[in-house]
Amino acid sequence: MNEEQALPFSLSVKAIVMDKDKRCLVLRRSMASKNNAGKWEFPGGKLNPGESFDNALEREVHEETGLEITLLRPFDTAMSSIQDRRVVYLFMLAETGTDRVRLSNEHDAFQWVAVDRLAEVDLARQFQSVAQRMAEAVLNGAL
Amino acid sequence: MNEEQALPFSLSVKAIVMDKDKRCLVLRRSMASKNNAGKWEFPGGKLNPGESFDNALEREVHEETGLEITLLRPFDTAMSSIQDRRVVYLFMLAETGTDRVRLSNEHDAFQWVAVDRLAEVDLARQFQSVAQRMAEAVLNGAL
Repeated sequence: MNEEQALPFSLSVKAIVMDKDKRCLVLRRSMASKNNAGKWEFPGGKLNPGESFDNALEREVHEETGLEITLLRPFDTAMSSIQDRRVVYLFMLAETGTDRVRLSNEHDAFQWVAVDRLAEVDLARQFQSVAQRMAEAVLNGAL
Repeated sequence: MNEEQALPFSLSVKAIVMDKDKRCLVLRRSMASKNNAGKWEFPGGKLNPGESFDNALEREVHEETGLEITLLRPFDTAMSSIQDRRVVYLFMLAETGTDRVRLSNEHDAFQWVAVDRLAEVDLARQFQSVAQRMAEAVLNGAL
């Protein structure tokens, strides 16, 4: 077992929110962020103690974007190591009926991106594989 | 929104436990099971209120198999619909140093299967895609 493997885990739930035109929402982390400042990411975050993953995801997305979303299905996982732990990401596909976003102070910009252009966005490293998989899913007609 | 989409979600964490020979563990659901009786599955289950996903997974695997596992990384997701809800599965790769399994009464058989033979196992439907992806990962040298 190496040192990285010994780090404890935490779970972060992330939403790939699509609008009516099948564009998905990415947010830019503010320059004050401890990790990945200035990098783009998907909305979402950690579960509060005792909170279910779907409620946590709807709450986090609302806090970060002002959007009400409908969760559709799980799509992928990813992992990153930060300081003292490993974060496991669970990505859920979601839809929303509006594209009017209201940011919190965690982020300083947002954009709606066509799925096949996600790879051009300067995403934090741990989100690059899910962007790739989204692009493949569009090509395969799975989205 | 159709009726299936309106069902609430719950999270189930599942371990793909590999032994020293890179075989993975599958369990057969007992004939008294409410869902998927007689079908094969991976160990794991639901989080208790307030429990972290990694503790829940280690506890469930220990209850169902007697094994102590080391979690490695997330691997995939899946979903199934049962009665009144949709279950989202988060699959974690894990390893164990022993293959001595002690079953609970939830299961009536177990086997250690080479990853490229997982597709031959009569898995519950929601686990067939992860078995396929495991086989691909072996072919690609990603396991």
